[in-house]
Amino acid sequence: MLIKVAYLGSAGSFSFLAAAHYFGTKTKLVPSDTITDVIKKVTIQKAQYGVIPIENSTTGSIFETYDLLIKHNVFITGEVYLCIHHHLLVKNGTNLADVSNCYSHPQAVAQCQNFLSKHKNFKLLYVADTATAAQTVAKSHGLTDAAIASTNAANLYSLRPICINIEDNARNFTRFAVISKRRSTDGNKVTLILSVKHIPGSLYRALAPIALSGFNLTKIESRPIMGTLWEYLFIVDFELGKFTKHLNNALKQLRQNTQKITILGTYTKGKSYET
Amino acid sequence: MLIKVAYLGSAGSFSFLAAAHYFGTKTKLVPSDTITDVIKKVTIQKAQYGVIPIENSTTGSIFETYDLLIKHNVFITGEVYLCIHHHLLVKNGTNLADVSNCYSHPQAVAQCQNFLSKHKNFKLLYVADTATAAQTVAKSHGLTDAAIASTNAANLYSLRPICINIEDNARNFTRFAVISKRRSTDGNKVTLILSVKHIPGSLYRALAPIALSGFNLTKIESRPIMGTLWEYLFIVDFELGKFTKHLNNALKQLRQNTQKITILGTYTKGKSYET
Repeated sequence: MLIKVAYLGSAGSFSFLAAAHYFGTKTKLVPSDTITDVIKKVTIQKAQYGVIPIENSTTGSIFETYDLLIKHNVFITGEVYLCIHHHLLVKNGTNLADVSNCYSHPQAVAQCQNFLSKHKNFKLLYVADTATAAQTVAKSHGLTDAAIASTNAANLYSLRPICINIEDNARNFTRFAVISKRRSTDGNKVTLILSVKHIPGSLYRALAPIALSGFNLTKIESRPIMGTLWEYLFIVDFELGKFTKHLNNALKQLRQNTQKITILGTYTKGKSYET
Repeated sequence: MLIKVAYLGSAGSFSFLAAAHYFGTKTKLVPSDTITDVIKKVTIQKAQYGVIPIENSTTGSIFETYDLLIKHNVFITGEVYLCIHHHLLVKNGTNLADVSNCYSHPQAVAQCQNFLSKHKNFKLLYVADTATAAQTVAKSHGLTDAAIASTNAANLYSLRPICINIEDNARNFTRFAVISKRRSTDGNKVTLILSVKHIPGSLYRALAPIALSGFNLTKIESRPIMGTLWEYLFIVDFELGKFTKHLNNALKQLRQNTQKITILGTYTKGKSYET
Protein backbone atom coordinates (compact mmCIF):
# COMPACT_ATOMS: atom_id res chain seq x y z
CA MET A 1 0.00 0.00 0.00
CA LEU A 2 1.27 3.49 -0.86
CA ILE A 3 2.45 5.68 2.00
CA LYS A 4 0.11 8.67 2.45
CA VAL A 5 1.61 12.14 2.90
CA ALA A 6 -0.67 15.06 3.86
CA TYR A 7 0.49 18.50 2.66
CA LEU A 8 -0.73 22.10 3.00
CA GLY A 9 -2.78 23.38 0.09
CA SER A 10 -3.76 21.80 -3.19
CA ALA A 11 -1.82 20.22 -6.09
CA GLY A 12 0.92 22.67 -7.15
CA SER A 13 1.25 24.40 -3.76
CA PHE A 14 4.77 24.88 -2.38
CA SER A 15 4.14 22.23 0.32
CA PHE A 16 3.07 19.88 -2.51
CA LEU A 17 6.39 20.56 -4.30
CA ALA A 18 8.34 20.03 -1.07
CA ALA A 19 6.53 16.71 -0.46
CA ALA A 20 7.13 15.58 -4.04
CA HIS A 21 10.89 16.36 -3.75
CA TYR A 22 11.22 14.62 -0.38
CA PHE A 23 9.15 11.50 -0.99
CA GLY A 24 9.44 11.05 -4.77
CA THR A 25 6.67 9.32 -6.69
CA LYS A 26 6.04 6.31 -4.47
CA THR A 27 3.58 8.05 -2.16
CA LYS A 28 0.02 9.31 -2.27
CA LEU A 29 0.00 13.08 -1.65
CA VAL A 30 -3.14 14.20 0.22
CA PRO A 31 -4.19 17.90 -0.01
CA SER A 32 -5.21 19.73 3.21
CA ASP A 33 -6.80 23.13 3.81
CA THR A 34 -4.79 24.21 6.84
CA ILE A 35 -1.66 23.34 8.84
CA THR A 36 -4.00 22.03 11.57
CA ASP A 37 -5.63 19.68 9.03
CA VAL A 38 -2.23 18.24 8.03
CA ILE A 39 -1.30 17.64 11.67
CA LYS A 40 -4.71 16.08 12.45
CA LYS A 41 -4.35 13.65 9.53
CA VAL A 42 -0.97 12.59 10.92
CA THR A 43 -2.32 12.33 14.48
CA ILE A 44 -5.24 10.07 13.56
CA GLN A 45 -3.01 8.10 11.15
CA LYS A 46 -4.98 9.08 8.05
CA ALA A 47 -1.51 9.95 6.74
CA GLN A 48 1.83 8.51 7.88
CA TYR A 49 3.61 11.81 7.18
CA GLY A 50 2.81 15.47 6.78
CA VAL A 51 4.64 18.33 5.02
CA ILE A 52 4.11 21.89 6.32
CA PRO A 53 6.01 25.20 6.14
CA ILE A 54 7.95 26.04 9.31
CA GLU A 55 10.12 29.07 8.41
CA ASN A 56 10.68 31.60 5.63
CA SER A 57 13.82 33.66 5.12
CA THR A 58 11.85 36.88 4.49
CA THR A 59 9.01 36.60 7.00
CA GLY A 60 10.49 34.42 9.74
CA SER A 61 9.27 31.46 11.76
CA ILE A 62 5.73 30.19 11.30
CA PHE A 63 4.78 30.05 14.97
CA GLU A 64 1.46 28.37 14.12
CA THR A 65 3.44 25.30 13.03
CA TYR A 66 5.58 25.18 16.19
CA ASP A 67 2.54 25.66 18.45
CA LEU A 68 0.60 22.88 16.74
CA LEU A 69 3.54 20.44 16.79
CA ILE A 70 3.89 20.94 20.55
CA LYS A 71 0.11 20.77 21.17
CA HIS A 72 -0.44 17.59 19.14
CA ASN A 73 2.73 15.73 20.16
CA VAL A 74 3.89 15.24 16.57
CA PHE A 75 7.58 15.11 15.60
CA ILE A 76 9.84 16.51 12.88
CA THR A 77 11.40 13.59 10.98
CA GLY A 78 12.83 15.50 8.03
CA GLU A 79 13.11 18.89 6.31
CA VAL A 80 13.15 20.34 2.80
CA TYR A 81 14.20 23.81 1.63
CA LEU A 82 12.59 25.39 -1.43
CA CYS A 83 14.00 28.51 -3.05
CA ILE A 84 10.71 30.30 -3.67
CA HIS A 85 10.08 32.42 -6.76
CA HIS A 86 6.77 34.20 -7.12
CA HIS A 87 5.27 35.42 -10.39
CA LEU A 88 2.21 37.45 -11.32
CA LEU A 89 0.05 35.05 -13.34
CA VAL A 90 -2.86 35.94 -15.61
CA LYS A 91 -5.08 34.31 -18.24
CA ASN A 92 -4.11 34.78 -21.86
CA GLY A 93 -5.37 38.14 -23.04
CA THR A 94 -4.96 39.93 -19.69
CA ASN A 95 -2.44 42.79 -19.61
CA LEU A 96 -0.78 44.20 -16.51
CA ALA A 97 -2.80 47.43 -16.87
CA ASP A 98 -6.07 45.42 -16.77
CA VAL A 99 -5.36 43.73 -13.43
CA SER A 100 -7.57 44.89 -10.57
CA ASN A 101 -7.89 41.76 -8.36
CA CYS A 102 -4.82 39.91 -7.13
CA TYR A 103 -5.32 36.49 -5.49
CA SER A 104 -2.68 34.92 -3.26
CA HIS A 105 -1.75 33.68 0.21
CA PRO A 106 -0.75 36.14 3.00
CA GLN A 107 2.76 34.62 3.21
CA ALA A 108 3.36 35.12 -0.53
CA VAL A 109 2.07 38.69 -0.32
CA ALA A 110 4.41 39.36 2.62
CA GLN A 111 7.31 38.17 0.45
CA CYS A 112 6.41 40.50 -2.47
CA GLN A 113 6.00 43.84 -0.66
CA ASN A 114 8.29 45.84 -2.97
CA PHE A 115 6.42 44.73 -6.09
CA LEU A 116 2.99 45.32 -4.52
CA SER A 117 3.97 48.78 -3.27
CA LYS A 118 4.32 49.72 -6.97
CA HIS A 119 0.85 48.31 -7.75
CA LYS A 120 -1.31 49.83 -5.04
CA ASN A 121 -4.36 49.65 -7.32
CA PHE A 122 -4.42 45.84 -6.90
CA LYS A 123 -7.18 44.64 -4.59
CA LEU A 124 -5.60 41.78 -2.62
CA LEU A 125 -7.80 38.72 -2.15
CA TYR A 126 -6.58 35.91 0.05
CA VAL A 127 -7.13 32.22 -0.53
CA ALA A 128 -5.87 29.02 1.14
CA ASP A 129 -2.62 28.68 -0.85
CA THR A 130 -0.92 30.02 -3.98
CA ALA A 131 -2.05 27.08 -6.14
CA THR A 132 -5.68 27.84 -5.24
CA ALA A 133 -5.01 31.48 -6.20
CA ALA A 134 -3.89 30.33 -9.66
CA GLN A 135 -6.89 28.02 -9.96
CA THR A 136 -9.25 30.87 -9.02
CA VAL A 137 -7.82 33.07 -11.78
CA ALA A 138 -8.02 30.21 -14.32
CA LYS A 139 -11.72 29.72 -13.51
CA SER A 140 -12.57 33.45 -13.41
CA HIS A 141 -14.68 35.26 -15.99
CA GLY A 142 -13.30 38.42 -17.53
CA LEU A 143 -9.66 39.50 -17.75
CA THR A 144 -9.02 41.55 -14.60
CA ASP A 145 -7.75 38.85 -12.22
CA ALA A 146 -4.17 37.87 -11.41
CA ALA A 147 -2.54 35.44 -8.97
CA ILE A 148 0.80 35.53 -7.18
CA ALA A 149 2.01 31.93 -7.44
CA SER A 150 4.75 29.60 -8.69
CA THR A 151 5.85 28.46 -12.16
CA ASN A 152 4.39 25.09 -11.28
CA ALA A 153 0.96 26.61 -10.57
CA ALA A 154 1.21 28.56 -13.86
CA ASN A 155 1.77 25.30 -15.75
CA LEU A 156 -0.95 23.41 -13.88
CA TYR A 157 -3.61 26.03 -14.60
CA SER A 158 -2.31 27.26 -18.00
CA LEU A 159 -1.68 30.81 -16.81
CA ARG A 160 0.84 33.26 -18.25
CA PRO A 161 3.46 34.96 -16.03
CA ILE A 162 3.45 38.71 -16.84
CA CYS A 163 5.88 39.73 -14.07
CA ILE A 164 8.44 37.16 -12.97
CA ASN A 165 10.49 36.74 -9.77
CA ILE A 166 8.53 39.42 -7.92
CA GLU A 167 9.76 38.26 -4.48
CA ASP A 168 11.64 40.95 -2.49
CA ASN A 169 14.67 38.76 -1.92
CA ALA A 170 16.06 36.70 -4.80
CA ARG A 171 17.28 34.16 -2.20
CA ASN A 172 13.81 33.80 -0.69
CA PHE A 173 13.54 30.28 0.73
CA THR A 174 10.97 28.40 2.76
CA ARG A 175 11.85 25.54 5.05
CA PHE A 176 9.30 22.73 5.26
CA ALA A 177 9.08 20.20 8.09
CA VAL A 178 8.31 16.56 7.38
CA ILE A 179 6.30 15.37 10.38
CA SER A 180 5.23 12.04 11.80
CA LYS A 181 3.51 10.63 14.87
CA ARG A 182 6.64 8.65 15.71
CA ARG A 183 9.85 10.31 16.79
CA SER A 184 13.01 9.30 14.94
CA THR A 185 16.30 9.06 16.81
CA ASP A 186 18.48 8.98 13.68
CA GLY A 187 19.86 12.02 11.95
CA ASN A 188 22.40 14.83 12.08
CA LYS A 189 20.14 17.72 13.09
CA VAL A 190 17.99 18.37 16.17
CA THR A 191 15.15 20.80 16.93
CA LEU A 192 14.40 21.58 20.58
CA ILE A 193 12.05 23.88 22.45
CA LEU A 194 13.48 24.87 25.79
CA SER A 195 12.39 27.18 28.56
CA VAL A 196 14.77 28.77 31.03
CA LYS A 197 14.31 30.84 34.17
CA HIS A 198 14.13 34.53 33.31
CA ILE A 199 17.30 35.52 35.16
CA PRO A 200 20.59 36.94 33.86
CA GLY A 201 22.79 34.36 32.11
CA SER A 202 20.19 31.57 32.12
CA LEU A 203 20.08 31.12 28.33
CA TYR A 204 23.87 31.40 28.08
CA ARG A 205 24.25 28.58 30.62
CA ALA A 206 21.55 26.53 28.87
CA LEU A 207 23.39 26.80 25.54
CA ALA A 208 26.71 25.63 26.98
CA PRO A 209 26.12 21.87 26.39
CA ILE A 210 25.35 22.59 22.70
CA ALA A 211 28.43 24.78 22.16
CA LEU A 212 30.80 22.60 24.16
CA SER A 213 29.66 19.40 22.37
CA GLY A 214 30.88 20.90 19.09
CA PHE A 215 27.37 21.20 17.64
CA ASN A 216 26.60 24.02 15.21
CA LEU A 217 23.64 26.21 16.20
CA THR A 218 21.65 27.02 13.02
CA LYS A 219 18.62 28.68 14.59
CA ILE A 220 17.75 30.27 17.91
CA GLU A 221 14.64 32.26 18.63
CA SER A 222 13.06 33.45 21.86
CA ARG A 223 9.27 33.53 22.12
CA PRO A 224 7.13 34.90 24.89
CA ILE A 225 5.18 31.94 26.35
CA MET A 226 1.54 32.09 25.28
CA GLY A 227 -0.61 33.50 28.06
CA THR A 228 2.30 35.01 29.99
CA LEU A 229 4.00 38.22 29.02
CA TRP A 230 7.36 37.76 30.65
CA GLU A 231 8.28 34.10 30.34
CA TYR A 232 10.16 32.77 27.37
CA LEU A 233 10.54 29.69 25.26
CA PHE A 234 13.51 29.25 22.95
CA ILE A 235 13.37 27.39 19.65
CA VAL A 236 16.81 25.90 18.97
CA ASP A 237 18.11 24.02 15.89
CA PHE A 238 21.60 22.56 15.79
CA GLU A 239 23.60 20.28 13.55
CA LEU A 240 25.57 17.46 15.15
CA GLY A 241 28.35 17.39 12.53
CA LYS A 242 30.83 14.66 13.45
CA PHE A 243 29.76 14.64 17.11
CA THR A 244 26.55 12.53 16.88
CA LYS A 245 27.75 10.40 19.79
CA HIS A 246 27.77 13.46 22.10
CA LEU A 247 24.00 13.99 21.72
CA ASN A 248 22.63 11.91 24.61
CA ASN A 249 25.08 13.41 27.05
CA ALA A 250 24.37 16.94 25.80
CA LEU A 251 20.60 16.40 26.19
CA LYS A 252 21.17 15.17 29.76
CA GLN A 253 23.12 18.35 30.57
CA LEU A 254 20.52 20.51 28.79
CA ARG A 255 17.82 18.99 31.03
CA GLN A 256 19.82 20.05 34.10
CA ASN A 257 20.30 23.63 32.81
CA THR A 258 16.73 24.35 31.70
CA GLN A 259 13.23 24.32 33.17
CA LYS A 260 11.78 22.20 30.40
CA ILE A 261 12.92 20.65 27.12
CA THR A 262 10.69 19.40 24.32
CA ILE A 263 12.53 17.47 21.61
CA LEU A 264 10.64 18.28 18.41
CA GLY A 265 12.76 15.89 16.40
CA THR A 266 16.07 14.37 15.32
CA TYR A 267 16.33 14.19 11.53
CA THR A 268 18.66 14.43 8.56
CA LYS A 269 19.56 17.95 7.41
CA GLY A 270 17.45 18.78 4.35
CA LYS A 271 18.31 19.49 0.75
CA SER A 272 17.44 22.67 -1.11
CA TYR A 273 15.52 22.77 -4.40
CA GLU A 274 14.65 25.52 -6.89
CA THR A 275 10.97 26.08 -7.76
CA MET B 1 6.38 74.28 18.23
CA LEU B 2 4.79 70.89 18.81
CA ILE B 3 6.99 67.84 18.37
CA LYS B 4 5.84 65.81 15.36
CA VAL B 5 5.50 62.03 15.69
CA ALA B 6 4.84 59.91 12.59
CA TYR B 7 2.92 56.66 13.19
CA LEU B 8 1.75 53.72 11.09
CA GLY B 9 -1.85 53.93 9.90
CA SER B 10 -4.56 56.49 10.52
CA ALA B 11 -6.18 57.92 13.69
CA GLY B 12 -7.25 55.03 15.94
CA SER B 13 -4.65 52.54 14.63
CA PHE B 14 -2.65 50.59 17.21
CA SER B 15 0.51 52.58 16.37
CA PHE B 16 -1.56 55.76 16.97
CA LEU B 17 -2.57 54.44 20.41
CA ALA B 18 1.04 53.50 21.21
CA ALA B 19 2.22 56.99 20.18
CA ALA B 20 -0.52 58.65 22.25
CA HIS B 21 0.43 56.62 25.35
CA TYR B 22 4.16 57.29 24.93
CA PHE B 23 4.09 60.99 24.04
CA GLY B 24 0.86 62.17 25.71
CA THR B 25 -1.01 65.13 24.28
CA LYS B 26 1.84 67.56 23.70
CA THR B 27 2.73 66.26 20.24
CA LYS B 28 1.32 66.34 16.75
CA LEU B 29 0.64 62.77 15.57
CA VAL B 30 1.18 62.37 11.81
CA PRO B 31 -0.50 59.42 10.01
CA SER B 32 1.57 57.34 7.54
CA ASP B 33 0.60 54.64 5.04
CA THR B 34 3.51 52.25 5.55
CA ILE B 35 6.41 51.52 7.91
CA THR B 36 8.72 52.86 5.18
CA ASP B 37 6.77 56.15 5.15
CA VAL B 38 7.20 56.56 8.93
CA ILE B 39 10.95 55.93 8.68
CA LYS B 40 11.29 58.34 5.72
CA LYS B 41 9.51 61.11 7.64
CA VAL B 42 11.99 60.62 10.49
CA THR B 43 14.97 60.47 8.12
CA ILE B 44 14.12 63.73 6.33
CA GLN B 45 13.14 65.32 9.68
CA LYS B 46 9.50 65.83 8.70
CA ALA B 47 8.92 64.19 12.11
CA GLN B 48 11.27 64.11 15.10
CA TYR B 49 10.01 60.66 16.14
CA GLY B 50 8.24 57.68 14.63
CA VAL B 51 6.19 54.86 16.18
CA ILE B 52 6.08 51.50 14.37
CA PRO B 53 5.31 47.89 15.35
CA ILE B 54 8.42 45.73 15.80
CA GLU B 55 7.16 42.45 17.33
CA ASN B 56 3.94 40.60 18.16
CA SER B 57 3.60 37.79 20.68
CA THR B 58 1.46 35.66 18.32
CA THR B 59 3.11 36.30 14.95
CA GLY B 60 6.71 37.12 15.91
CA SER B 61 9.21 39.76 14.83
CA ILE B 62 8.29 42.21 12.11
CA PHE B 63 11.44 41.80 10.01
CA GLU B 64 10.37 44.63 7.70
CA THR B 65 10.89 47.04 10.62
CA TYR B 66 14.35 45.68 11.52
CA ASP B 67 15.46 45.73 7.86
CA LEU B 68 14.31 49.33 7.37
CA LEU B 69 15.92 50.55 10.63
CA ILE B 70 19.27 49.10 9.53
CA LYS B 71 18.93 50.38 5.95
CA HIS B 72 17.98 53.96 6.91
CA ASN B 73 20.31 54.35 9.89
CA VAL B 74 17.52 55.24 12.30
CA PHE B 75 17.62 54.36 16.01
CA ILE B 76 15.27 52.96 18.64
CA THR B 77 14.88 55.54 21.45
CA GLY B 78 11.94 53.99 23.27
CA GLU B 79 9.35 51.21 23.29
CA VAL B 80 5.69 50.69 24.16
CA TYR B 81 3.74 47.45 24.66
CA LEU B 82 0.04 47.25 23.86
CA CYS B 83 -2.11 44.33 24.90
CA ILE B 84 -4.11 43.95 21.70
CA HIS B 85 -7.77 42.95 21.67
CA HIS B 86 -9.52 42.55 18.33
CA HIS B 87 -13.28 42.71 17.78
CA LEU B 88 -15.56 42.13 14.83
CA LEU B 89 -17.16 45.52 14.17
CA VAL B 90 -20.27 46.26 12.09
CA LYS B 91 -22.68 49.10 11.41
CA ASN B 92 -25.88 49.20 13.44
CA GLY B 93 -28.39 46.84 11.85
CA THR B 94 -25.81 44.30 10.60
CA ASN B 95 -26.07 40.80 12.14
CA LEU B 96 -23.28 38.23 12.21
CA ALA B 97 -25.20 36.07 9.71
CA ASP B 98 -25.26 38.99 7.22
CA VAL B 99 -21.48 39.51 7.13
CA SER B 100 -19.83 38.54 3.85
CA ASN B 101 -16.87 40.97 3.58
CA CYS B 102 -14.35 41.31 6.40
CA TYR B 103 -11.85 44.20 6.25
CA SER B 104 -8.64 44.21 8.27
CA HIS B 105 -4.82 44.21 8.24
CA PRO B 106 -2.86 40.97 7.56
CA GLN B 107 -1.28 41.10 11.06
CA ALA B 108 -4.70 41.33 12.76
CA VAL B 109 -6.01 38.47 10.61
CA ALA B 110 -2.97 36.37 11.55
CA GLN B 111 -3.80 36.98 15.23
CA CYS B 112 -7.47 35.84 14.84
CA GLN B 113 -7.03 32.53 12.99
CA ASN B 114 -9.23 30.46 15.36
CA PHE B 115 -12.16 32.85 15.02
CA LEU B 116 -11.79 33.11 11.23
CA SER B 117 -11.57 29.32 10.82
CA LYS B 118 -15.16 29.21 12.16
CA HIS B 119 -16.27 31.87 9.65
CA LYS B 120 -14.88 30.59 6.39
CA ASN B 121 -17.65 32.34 4.45
CA PHE B 122 -16.02 35.72 5.20
CA LYS B 123 -14.21 37.20 2.22
CA LEU B 124 -11.07 38.79 3.70
CA LEU B 125 -10.19 42.22 2.30
CA TYR B 126 -6.94 43.87 3.36
CA VAL B 127 -6.38 47.55 4.00
CA ALA B 128 -3.48 49.62 5.38
CA ASP B 129 -4.39 49.29 9.08
CA THR B 130 -7.25 48.23 11.35
CA ALA B 131 -8.53 51.80 11.81
CA THR B 132 -8.87 52.15 8.02
CA ALA B 133 -10.77 48.84 8.03
CA ALA B 134 -13.27 50.31 10.53
CA GLN B 135 -13.53 53.52 8.49
CA THR B 136 -14.20 51.50 5.32
CA VAL B 137 -17.09 49.67 7.01
CA ALA B 138 -18.50 52.92 8.41
CA LYS B 139 -18.55 54.44 4.91
CA SER B 140 -19.91 51.32 3.17
CA HIS B 141 -23.40 50.99 1.70
CA GLY B 142 -25.50 48.00 2.71
CA LEU B 143 -25.12 45.82 5.79
CA THR B 144 -22.76 43.00 4.77
CA ASP B 145 -19.38 44.48 5.77
CA ALA B 146 -17.41 43.95 8.96
CA ALA B 147 -13.97 45.03 10.23
CA ILE B 148 -11.52 43.39 12.61
CA ALA B 149 -10.27 46.31 14.72
CA SER B 150 -9.96 47.79 18.21
CA THR B 151 -12.46 49.26 20.68
CA ASN B 152 -10.92 52.63 19.90
CA ALA B 153 -11.64 52.24 16.17
CA ALA B 154 -15.22 51.17 17.02
CA ASN B 155 -15.71 54.38 19.01
CA LEU B 156 -14.07 56.59 16.38
CA TYR B 157 -16.25 55.28 13.56
CA SER B 158 -19.43 54.52 15.59
CA LEU B 159 -19.36 50.79 14.87
CA ARG B 160 -20.84 48.05 17.02
CA PRO B 161 -18.71 45.07 18.18
CA ILE B 162 -20.69 41.87 17.52
CA CYS B 163 -17.90 39.45 18.52
CA ILE B 164 -15.41 40.66 21.11
CA ASN B 165 -11.84 39.59 21.97
CA ILE B 166 -11.53 37.38 18.89
CA GLU B 167 -7.71 37.22 19.11
CA ASP B 168 -6.32 33.66 19.45
CA ASN B 169 -4.31 34.49 22.54
CA ALA B 170 -5.88 36.55 25.31
CA ARG B 171 -2.39 37.84 26.18
CA ASN B 172 -1.74 39.01 22.61
CA PHE B 173 0.64 41.97 22.75
CA THR B 174 2.45 44.08 20.21
CA ARG B 175 5.69 45.86 20.93
CA PHE B 176 6.16 49.24 19.24
CA ALA B 177 9.51 50.95 18.70
CA VAL B 178 9.84 54.70 19.13
CA ILE B 179 12.45 55.76 16.58
CA SER B 180 14.55 58.83 15.96
CA LYS B 181 17.36 59.99 13.69
CA ARG B 182 19.57 60.55 16.72
CA ARG B 183 20.84 57.69 18.85
CA SER B 184 20.30 58.01 22.59
CA THR B 185 22.93 56.68 24.99
CA ASP B 186 20.66 56.74 28.05
CA GLY B 187 18.44 53.90 29.16
CA ASN B 188 18.30 50.46 30.71
CA LYS B 189 17.68 48.34 27.61
CA VAL B 190 19.72 47.75 24.45
CA THR B 191 18.89 46.31 21.01
CA LEU B 192 21.76 44.99 18.89
CA ILE B 193 22.10 43.24 15.56
CA LEU B 194 25.19 41.05 15.48
CA SER B 195 26.64 38.64 12.98
CA VAL B 196 28.98 35.80 13.89
CA LYS B 197 31.01 33.31 11.91
CA HIS B 198 28.96 30.20 11.16
CA ILE B 199 31.15 27.81 13.16
CA PRO B 200 30.34 25.72 16.24
CA GLY B 201 30.18 27.77 19.45
CA SER B 202 30.44 31.19 17.77
CA LEU B 203 27.13 32.54 19.08
CA TYR B 204 27.79 31.09 22.53
CA ARG B 205 31.12 32.93 22.67
CA ALA B 206 29.51 36.12 21.34
CA LEU B 207 26.87 36.06 24.09
CA ALA B 208 29.43 35.68 26.89
CA PRO B 209 29.97 39.44 27.46
CA ILE B 210 26.18 39.92 27.85
CA ALA B 211 25.75 37.03 30.30
CA LEU B 212 28.91 37.76 32.29
CA SER B 213 28.04 41.46 32.65
CA GLY B 214 24.86 40.47 34.52
CA PHE B 215 22.55 41.71 31.75
CA ASN B 216 19.22 39.97 31.21
CA LEU B 217 18.64 38.73 27.64
CA THR B 218 14.98 39.38 26.75
CA LYS B 219 15.09 38.52 23.05
CA ILE B 220 17.35 36.58 20.73
CA GLU B 221 16.55 35.62 17.19
CA SER B 222 18.69 34.29 14.37
CA ARG B 223 17.94 35.41 10.84
CA PRO B 224 19.45 34.17 7.62
CA ILE B 225 21.26 37.15 6.04
CA MET B 226 19.30 38.43 3.03
CA GLY B 227 20.80 37.13 -0.17
CA THR B 228 22.84 34.37 1.47
CA LEU B 229 21.33 31.10 2.60
CA TRP B 230 23.83 30.07 5.24
CA GLU B 231 24.98 33.20 7.02
CA TYR B 232 23.20 34.54 10.04
CA LEU B 233 22.37 37.76 11.84
CA PHE B 234 21.18 37.73 15.43
CA ILE B 235 18.76 40.25 16.87
CA VAL B 236 19.50 40.62 20.58
CA ASP B 237 17.66 42.63 23.27
CA PHE B 238 18.93 42.81 26.82
CA GLU B 239 18.18 44.76 29.98
CA LEU B 240 21.06 46.30 31.90
CA GLY B 241 19.41 46.04 35.33
CA LYS B 242 21.78 47.48 37.93
CA PHE B 243 24.83 47.00 35.70
CA THR B 244 24.49 50.05 33.40
CA LYS B 245 28.14 50.92 33.98
CA HIS B 246 29.23 47.58 32.46
CA LEU B 247 27.74 48.45 29.04
CA ASN B 248 30.71 50.12 27.34
CA ASN B 249 33.07 47.36 28.34
CA ALA B 250 30.59 44.68 27.27
CA LEU B 251 30.16 46.33 23.86
CA LYS B 252 33.95 46.41 23.44
CA GLN B 253 34.15 42.67 24.15
CA LEU B 254 31.16 42.00 21.89
CA ARG B 255 33.00 43.75 19.04
CA GLN B 256 35.94 41.39 19.53
CA ASN B 257 33.72 38.26 19.55
CA THR B 258 31.55 39.05 16.52
CA GLN B 259 32.01 39.87 12.85
CA LYS B 260 29.79 42.96 13.00
CA ILE B 261 27.64 44.79 15.53
CA THR B 262 24.93 47.33 14.77
CA ILE B 263 23.58 49.13 17.83
CA LEU B 264 19.91 49.78 17.03
CA GLY B 265 19.41 51.71 20.24
CA THR B 266 19.77 52.25 23.99
CA TYR B 267 16.44 53.19 25.57
CA THR B 268 14.25 52.88 28.62
CA LYS B 269 12.31 49.64 28.97
CA GLY B 270 8.71 50.30 27.91
CA LYS B 271 5.43 50.20 29.75
CA SER B 272 2.46 48.03 28.82
CA TYR B 273 -1.05 49.35 28.17
CA GLU B 274 -4.45 47.73 27.55
CA THR B 275 -6.35 48.67 24.38
